[in-house]
This record gives sequence, C-alpha cells and structure tokens, in this order.
Amino acid sequence: MRACIISIGNELLRGKTVNTNASEFGMKLTLCGYDVVRGLTVMDDSDEIAWALEVGMESADLVLTTGGLGPTFDDMTVESVSKALGLSLTADPVTSERLRKRYAKLGLEPTPERLKMAMIPEGSRALQNPVGAAPGVFLKVHNKMIIILPGVPEEANAILDSIMDEIRIRGVEYYSESRYLKGVMESSLVRIVNTVMKEMDSKVYIKSHPRHSETGNPAVELEILARSDTKQHAMDLVKSAFSMVLEQLNEGKNKGQE
Amino acid sequence: MRACIISIGNELLRGKTVNTNASEFGMKLTLCGYDVVRGLTVMDDSDEIAWALEVGMESADLVLTTGGLGPTFDDMTVESVSKALGLSLTADPVTSERLRKRYAKLGLEPTPERLKMAMIPEGSRALQNPVGAAPGVFLKVHNKMIIILPGVPEEANAILDSIMDEIRIRGVEYYSESRYLKGVMESSLVRIVNTVMKEMDSKVYIKSHPRHSETGNPAVELEILARSDTKQHAMDLVKSAFSMVLEQLNEGKNKGQE
Repeated sequence: MRACIISIGNELLRGKTVNTNASEFGMKLTLCGYDVVRGLTVMDDSDEIAWALEVGMESADLVLTTGGLGPTFDDMTVESVSKALGLSLTADPVTSERLRKRYAKLGLEPTPERLKMAMIPEGSRALQNPVGAAPGVFLKVHNKMIIILPGVPEEANAILDSIMDEIRIRGVEYYSESRYLKGVMESSLVRIVNTVMKEMDSKVYIKSHPRHSETGNPAVELEILARSDTKQHAMDLVKSAFSMVLEQLNEGKNKGQE
Repeated sequence: MRACIISIGNELLRGKTVNTNASEFGMKLTLCGYDVVRGLTVMDDSDEIAWALEVGMESADLVLTTGGLGPTFDDMTVESVSKALGLSLTADPVTSERLRKRYAKLGLEPTPERLKMAMIPEGSRALQNPVGAAPGVFLKVHNKMIIILPGVPEEANAILDSIMDEIRIRGVEYYSESRYLKGVMESSLVRIVNTVMKEMDSKVYIKSHPRHSETGNPAVELEILARSDTKQHAMDLVKSAFSMVLEQLNEGKNKGQE
C-alpha cells in the first residue's frame, strides 16, 4: 500500500518553518507498513490544495494532509478538499459543542471563524484533537483513505497516534538498522552494496548516507531496511545483509583494494 | 518569478531525514525575490524524478533539485534530468581532473562510479563543489533555469551560495518580521488581519502561527511580510501593518471584546 503526504502552508515553502511533520508522519506511515511514495508541499491556496489532492489520490492508497485547519483566512484545507471531492460541509456536533464550551469558559463569543473548525466533509469522521481546537478528519473516498491533520506538530501527532492501529497494514513488519562506518568512502561501497542487494534477491534495501567528505576523512552511515511478514524475519534479513557487506569490505581491505 | 524545489531521496519520504534543505533553499530563493510555489519530494527513481521535473517546469521559472548526485546506484538525478530533457551527458573536464587528482592522492582508482560524478548534461555548467566530490549543475532549457544540487546540506548550501548573486531578481526586495504576542488567540486575530491586509491593499502578507493552544494559555507568533523595490519601503510597509494590527488589538481589548 502506498501513501502520499501533502504539507500545506506558505511558511513551509519560503523556509520559515522546517517541515518536521513530513518526516515524522513519513516514519509513522512506514512503520505502519506503507510505502511513502511522494511528498507535496503547496501554498495556502484552494486550487493548489485541490491539485495536490488529485496527485495524491492518483499516486497512493492513503493521502495524509497536514496544515491549514485553524481559524484564519488562509486555513482552507477542509473546505478545499471538500470542494475538490464534491462533498458538502457539515458541522461535527461533538466538536461544535466542545468549541462552544471552551470559548464560553473564557467568556468569548463562538464567532463563525471559531466554529469553522467544527466543519467537516459529509461522510467523514472527526478525529478528536486532545491538544488543540481543530479536529482532524478521516475520510474514505473512491477506495482511498484521506487523513486531514492540523499543522501544529503536537496536535497532528496526537491525532495520528489515535488512528495508527486502525490504518496499520497487518502482516507487514518493517525493520531498519544503521551503522556508522568510519574510514569508508561511499564510492568504495557501491559495488558491494549492488552485489549484496542482488545476492539477497532485493529483499533488503541498502542506502549509504555520506557523513563526511568523500575524499577528506570519509565516513558513511550505512542503513539497511527490510520488510517481511514477521519482525524477526525482517531483522534477520537486515543482520545477514550487514554481515555480507562488512565481510566484503574487509576482503577488499585485505586485498589492498582500498 | 516563481520557483519550485524538488527533493530527491527515499530517506526523506520515510522520515529517516528531516528535509532541512527544502526550508533552507526556500528561504534563500525567497530572499532572492522568488515566490516558492511548490515543493516536491520524490523517490530515488528515474520516472519519479522526470515527473517532478515536468511539474516543476510547468509551475515555475526556476527549478531547484537537491539530492541524488553521489556515486551510488540510487544517485540518478543528473542522468534522469538529462534523459527527461533529451540531453546527452558529457564529462565536465574540470571536475574529471579534480576527481582523478583527489582519488589518486589517496592511492585509489578512478572507478566509473567515481567518475560518474563528473558527468553533466550537454549545454549545462558545472557548479564547483568546494566541500565535496559531486559538482552542482546549472542549466537553462525552454526559458527555465534548472539548478541541480547535492543532498548533503553543507555541499548544497556552498554551491547555492556561489550562484545567489547570479539568480537574484533585481529590484525586488523582501522583508519579514515576526512578533510573539502572548495572551492573544489566533481566532481573535482573524478579522483584524483581514481588515489590515485589505486596508494595506494586499501589499503585505500577514500570517499567524499559533504557539500555544488556542483555548489554553494562548500565544501567537504574528509574521508580516512585504516585497517592494527597496528594502526600506518593504520594511516601512511591515512596520505600518504591525502598528495597525496592534492598535486594533488594543482597541478590541479596551472595548472588552476579548
């Protein structure tokens, strides 16, 4: 199953905010068994949100959006998604009641901007926000899952955590491990990595991350990933691959190739 | 002028790496006068890179890619971009020579994987990398600028910095300022922000970032941005907008609206 993450907000595009949500959610969806295949960052603009949603639904089974759920004029995610899907908006009664109570307690009016946060697309489910005001939204359309989350990381993570069990793909376990290899050049690893991935029949994915200049004082973080039906088997695959890589690296060194 | 940033790498999608490049480059391009309109994160896959390039060239005048320039099997950005644009690859003589010398100094062979890093699309210019092995690439095609940078932040930033003056849009100055407003709810700002943006004829852009729970112990970071032909004028616009927002907030408080 494939996933696409859509991040909404001008502040992300002009670099005001580092998109930690995309990596946090990417990791969580990966651990739930999904292949995260595309990430899109778009402006606070209804057409741009509609474009991203279309690309997301073409690319993936699960589309997760983050950002644009607050009370301000440029928070337009729910409205834009609903419009793009041809769905009308209805007030979620639980959220409306909660918002009214929260603002009343502070002696404040339930203005239309504030109550806007309770509006969700018809046929969707509000995902209660234990941290902030705007709820998340869970929606199934055309056999696709759509999850709409706020942009504030604490709120979005709390909501996503509450549905992890529901969206988890059963029988797909993921394992990854990294090792820091000092004195190893990324370019020396290329053939070894290719050989090991082939020998292991592509059951593992090996990625090297240069951690120092290739020709200065080289160092590489070697990361090996595997998916399997059990955690133990995924782990065994990763361990075998590490042994093979390290063995071939040592052989190379002994032969004086490096 | 519009810009699109393409980030390439499976590690970004599955959340292994936080995409600090996208925000760093987003900020630099904004300061150079560009509107960064879309961000795309794609896998280490030739078709995905081609897709992102197509979307980028449709959306923007400047397309900047980051990642996939190293020596490993999944570093395929330059090759994929060349293929997508129908350009052949040629070895950049300066880079080839530099790579040969660097590896020779270490007593290492100039393997095809290592020399791959000197290959650039015909008609492009290699952007020398003062930190690492793979150079960046600068390319003009169909009236669009394409800048290809490595994924390692220090390398990519050093290369981008070296061409900032060349890509800077003359006569477009950008200014932004943020203030932390304690005790102010984002939902209370909505109408004020709308009024001020309208009164200032949309010459400023005002964005509020909630920094604490809306109904708990509220706090908002209020950010005001402006573009103008001089830095001083952009700054004046921002200062005026801040005065107007703060004045209206105080008026509201005095009237007991909040």
